[in-house]
Amino acid sequence: MVNTPYKKLKLNIQEIIAKKRDKLELTKEEIEYFINGYTKGEITDYQAAALIMAIYINGMNDRETTDLTLSMAYSGTQLDLSSLGEVVDKHSTGGVGDKITLILMPVIASLGIPVAKMSGRGLGFTGGTIDKLEAIHGYNTNITVEEFMENVKKIGISLMGQTLNLAPADKKIYALRDTIACTDSIPLIASSIMSKKIAAGANKIVIDVTCGSGAFMKTREEAESLARIMTAIGKLANKETVCIITPMDEPVGYAVGNTLEVIEAVDILKNKYMPKDVKNIIEELGANMLMLAGKVSNLNEGKNLILENIKNGKAYQKFLELVENQNGDISYIENTDKFEKAKYIVPIVAQKDGTIVQLDALTIGKLSCYLGAGREKKEDDINPRVGFVFNKKVGDTVKNGEIIGYIHSDDEAKAQEILQQEVIKIS
Amino acid sequence: MVNTPYKKLKLNIQEIIAKKRDKLELTKEEIEYFINGYTKGEITDYQAAALIMAIYINGMNDRETTDLTLSMAYSGTQLDLSSLGEVVDKHSTGGVGDKITLILMPVIASLGIPVAKMSGRGLGFTGGTIDKLEAIHGYNTNITVEEFMENVKKIGISLMGQTLNLAPADKKIYALRDTIACTDSIPLIASSIMSKKIAAGANKIVIDVTCGSGAFMKTREEAESLARIMTAIGKLANKETVCIITPMDEPVGYAVGNTLEVIEAVDILKNKYMPKDVKNIIEELGANMLMLAGKVSNLNEGKNLILENIKNGKAYQKFLELVENQNGDISYIENTDKFEKAKYIVPIVAQKDGTIVQLDALTIGKLSCYLGAGREKKEDDINPRVGFVFNKKVGDTVKNGEIIGYIHSDDEAKAQEILQQEVIKIS
Repeated sequence: MVNTPYKKLKLNIQEIIAKKRDKLELTKEEIEYFINGYTKGEITDYQAAALIMAIYINGMNDRETTDLTLSMAYSGTQLDLSSLGEVVDKHSTGGVGDKITLILMPVIASLGIPVAKMSGRGLGFTGGTIDKLEAIHGYNTNITVEEFMENVKKIGISLMGQTLNLAPADKKIYALRDTIACTDSIPLIASSIMSKKIAAGANKIVIDVTCGSGAFMKTREEAESLARIMTAIGKLANKETVCIITPMDEPVGYAVGNTLEVIEAVDILKNKYMPKDVKNIIEELGANMLMLAGKVSNLNEGKNLILENIKNGKAYQKFLELVENQNGDISYIENTDKFEKAKYIVPIVAQKDGTIVQLDALTIGKLSCYLGAGREKKEDDINPRVGFVFNKKVGDTVKNGEIIGYIHSDDEAKAQEILQQEVIKIS
Repeated sequence: MVNTPYKKLKLNIQEIIAKKRDKLELTKEEIEYFINGYTKGEITDYQAAALIMAIYINGMNDRETTDLTLSMAYSGTQLDLSSLGEVVDKHSTGGVGDKITLILMPVIASLGIPVAKMSGRGLGFTGGTIDKLEAIHGYNTNITVEEFMENVKKIGISLMGQTLNLAPADKKIYALRDTIACTDSIPLIASSIMSKKIAAGANKIVIDVTCGSGAFMKTREEAESLARIMTAIGKLANKETVCIITPMDEPVGYAVGNTLEVIEAVDILKNKYMPKDVKNIIEELGANMLMLAGKVSNLNEGKNLILENIKNGKAYQKFLELVENQNGDISYIENTDKFEKAKYIVPIVAQKDGTIVQLDALTIGKLSCYLGAGREKKEDDINPRVGFVFNKKVGDTVKNGEIIGYIHSDDEAKAQEILQQEVIKIS
């Protein structure tokens, strides 16, 4: 036979879609064919949308998820951090008031572990480290990779924005998922996170899987499932990965909003106070990072080192060095009163005696975004000054008439509108 | 409360997609919102693709399928045939060698039932009535609706192409389904067929649900399921619908290819011969059409009338009238030897004694398309001359050396290539 009609092509996207539609396992070659074709624009958005919906509904096993992760990780630039030594990356699945990176990374660097971390901006109700760093006058997040590497070699730490073309396939798929109701799929979330981390060059990764109203994972079960898959991907991809599950039902610490969170992080590094939840998170994440880096042989030892370098001021000194080295004005850090404040700082007053039973992270995150601290769309500008500072956490007792927090707003009407809502529930 | 952040819109496509993704039932309003938005281009192809994949995997109940059908039917022009009296439409889900419309509609018209039928072109391995009519020199399928209505009033029959903007939402969705491996979904097929029929104006519909290798429905079960849903849609939409399931494992009749099928249809109308399968189909469909039109009170009476008007020549006379009235040259009909033939007419010879056990409709359809009788893409030109004429049907006995059919080809190499394949299996 010379030419048979309808000769089958080696791979084609319709057959790949049909396989996942019928709940079959995709091969590595099929997944690579999809990711390469979609990155190049040879596979259309609507074909990708159909396949992603089929993945959402019919799932993917660990092997498929790992192949998806690696295909996306290799779809653009890959950073090579090997010249820096044993770099341990840290990631959080996002939350409200989450300033952990600002606190923990200087601690880690102060312990002699190189910190070379790229961070993102906030979207929706969750914040982003880059927005927080940019609240510091002069801090340059938009440096070149060469400067980034230089910084780490020179002072042991650099935090920059994601300016590289890391995992472009993930960017395209992430944007698409948002428009087709496919954001909350565990294999898709796992591959998205892990592809960026792998492209960013770390061999060892600690991930804070947040869980609760202010996180993408609402239940412990979902968080455990995401943690399990990411650990499996790490194993299959030869990138040692540890996941910690932390609660996100109330904001982390007391402050929410970019400048307000920087001030809180600085106060913690200055050892002025330590919120209990922040302490737990930095101990857990930090000890695991130190274990992965081979710095300590057990978690307790790690936890002690983390707290010690806050108490002895070394972490704060490292933070000053970081800010100065990236052109930030350290006089704001030395004296946080210099930060520009919002126009209206409106107290939230308890209406009765009782115990705080709810300080809902999702509500606070959304209201904070409404005040201007976050973006609804990627292109939106943010206002670094606005947000919330609470005096209490869930479980604390309050008295009628006591100030339990402040709304920081540039718009008085919005502050008054929020005051009308019972954002803090007292039993 | 004045402005709450993230105020929910009344309806939005992400939430509609999410509902079907989660296997929930969509409301009529949600389905209309999707169809209207997609027709207008306000909902993107990738959002539609995600929703269609979710429908494919999670299904739709009869109510949802009916709402989808009606939304698509109302998305463009709707024909009003009420001035013509009781019009009964006929549809086939497609097949190989299916020239039933050419034979049955003149019979129906010759019995005084108005025939106003819009037909489509062939795509892939299945043929289309319009391509067959255009094989008749001069026959104009591209007439206006006014001419179409005039024709029916004047001579009781008109067959034209789908030139109107009927069910444009279905056109968009149909084209999309093809690219995302979502063609073979029973609710989507049912709504596609019924939306076009409803937009085309008939109140009563008889559908030939073909079933077998040369049909979209491969199994009897699938065909029954499609028939059941279309009958249910007809009922809910107040359009009386009867579905007949007919086998399509071998081609209908003896000829496959546009001119060749016209010649066979004319020969049958001339009462020269009557293939058994054609007889069964026209009896069943025709009797049901006569019942729906109120012409007969039982199916046997209907079957007799159908065959009678072929035998007495009235159906043939009506066909001549139809062709002449739409500018076709009836001398070709009166003397089918006038039709231009393919360059090479190559006999297929039995290689042994035995019984024909397979004459696979799908294979014949694809090979016929390969010879040029069909289109792989909508834009392709077709060659009216090429195809197959068989002398035998499955079950017939043959002798070694006997001619069992002919390949009609304009390309000798292709004919020889096909000869090498065992397209007719003898036991």
